[in-house]
Amino acid sequence: MPRISDLGEDALVARLTSLLSSGPGVLAGPGDDCAVVEGSARGEVELLKTDCLVEGIHYRPNAMASKVGRKAVARTLSDFAAMGGWPRHLLLTIALPPDREVRWVEGLYRGMNKCAQQYECAIVGGETSSLPVGAPVVISVAATGFAKRTQLTMRSAGQRGDLLFVTGRLGGSLKGRHLTFTPRLVEARWLTEKFRVHAMMDLSDGLAMDLPRLAAASGCGFRLDRESVPRTRGVTVGQAIGDGEDYELLFALSPRSAKRLQAEWARQFSRLRLTCIGSLTDCEGPLLDGGWDHFAS
Amino acid sequence: MPRISDLGEDALVARLTSLLSSGPGVLAGPGDDCAVVEGSARGEVELLKTDCLVEGIHYRPNAMASKVGRKAVARTLSDFAAMGGWPRHLLLTIALPPDREVRWVEGLYRGMNKCAQQYECAIVGGETSSLPVGAPVVISVAATGFAKRTQLTMRSAGQRGDLLFVTGRLGGSLKGRHLTFTPRLVEARWLTEKFRVHAMMDLSDGLAMDLPRLAAASGCGFRLDRESVPRTRGVTVGQAIGDGEDYELLFALSPRSAKRLQAEWARQFSRLRLTCIGSLTDCEGPLLDGGWDHFAS
Repeated sequence: MPRISDLGEDALVARLTSLLSSGPGVLAGPGDDCAVVEGSARGEVELLKTDCLVEGIHYRPNAMASKVGRKAVARTLSDFAAMGGWPRHLLLTIALPPDREVRWVEGLYRGMNKCAQQYECAIVGGETSSLPVGAPVVISVAATGFAKRTQLTMRSAGQRGDLLFVTGRLGGSLKGRHLTFTPRLVEARWLTEKFRVHAMMDLSDGLAMDLPRLAAASGCGFRLDRESVPRTRGVTVGQAIGDGEDYELLFALSPRSAKRLQAEWARQFSRLRLTCIGSLTDCEGPLLDGGWDHFAS
Repeated sequence: MPRISDLGEDALVARLTSLLSSGPGVLAGPGDDCAVVEGSARGEVELLKTDCLVEGIHYRPNAMASKVGRKAVARTLSDFAAMGGWPRHLLLTIALPPDREVRWVEGLYRGMNKCAQQYECAIVGGETSSLPVGAPVVISVAATGFAKRTQLTMRSAGQRGDLLFVTGRLGGSLKGRHLTFTPRLVEARWLTEKFRVHAMMDLSDGLAMDLPRLAAASGCGFRLDRESVPRTRGVTVGQAIGDGEDYELLFALSPRSAKRLQAEWARQFSRLRLTCIGSLTDCEGPLLDGGWDHFAS
């Protein structure tokens, strides 16, 4: 009998989502950073997303509780940035052993609440459930949000010839940035207001996994200029491409817009780098080493 | 340092939710079966809910995967019934060890999808994450839905003198019904369309835990006529009150409406019992034995 580790994450997800039926009002189901459904206000769509953290996998057991909470919320919010949207309401699910200190859970909640407030969204409900003593804590954050129809950016509408950009610097996130990163909501809002971004996603599993996903969703290949990949200080090119947990934006845009983008970006976000790292092409992209597969053996 | 097991579930939840800030558009945050936020269509509110299952706690490891999936979805749907609402879109989070058989996860998804379809809602996204080998599977289902403002039923608007009703029969759910119960969506819709139900909830942790919660949320005490509690065949009164996982509706309604309710219910749902089990009062209710506290030592 095949096990999950035999398949790998993308093949598993493809197999599972093929079992799901669509329903009324669903504009885009699984496969992008958020699901897109018919929205509330005129000219808007509703965005839905769930994400989770597992102790020992997404954070070390001795990490500060408030930082873990912050990360749990910020990861979900980052997916709203990736769609050119904004989060609105959050639901928490926390499964943890009964011998956990109350103070730890309170710290977790404080970190989650603070991060939600910072982006003007609210935690409106939650569920706590017990696990057997010794089992790792599981924290899931689901959220609703919205995007203007004119700013909604899927992974799938990249075009051949588009230039590929990333925000910030990549690699070495496990040294600490994976707990303290900024979800690029403000930047994505500005970007999708001012420019026709064809395709966008956030980099969670590393450029090596995520760039091929964006290209494939758009029916394209890609060219990556490895030397241009913006690196965190002290990190190799291979690490910048393969490490993951960067939560920076990766997006595709017509070359005609690129010059204006770079000039206006530099004025608007003078402290955040924007780098062209390659393009979408006709041909299949190269195989990239690294990236994070949740179920790899 | 106090641990979660020292507090118990309700005290923990009260402590945690006091740490959360409200936000724009939030009509009711944590504390009811669903959160209530400003809604999409005119005359409607949006409902939000998350719930979870843990292997070995909410189902036996050898339970059939499709039934586990069905239960995970049906539990969340039951909370929409409890508000007089209807679910719309679902998000799944599944954390599981990589040595789990693919066939098991597919069975789980099939069960979840079938249950969602049955109630005309759709699973629009999901997240799968790996756990260390040996850790129990955690399944979380978050959902959005809606209620007409005129049919929205909270726990908190029960009135002294209201009669208390339950649907179906209680107790003995662990023999199998906890996997196969019917979320009372159709019944709740009919009920809130035809009658002014003051307060309602679904019975998940047992009457012994849930009835005092509904009474307290309404600022009332309660009287329970123990002998009237409708029992599953072969179950004692104590078990019917304390077992939990019934997912029947408990609701409060003015005595003036009770007679018409009982007559019309019998015509509409001839195969589902409706029983008056007591009333909301001025005085504190009695202490009831049993019920399910997730974090009790």
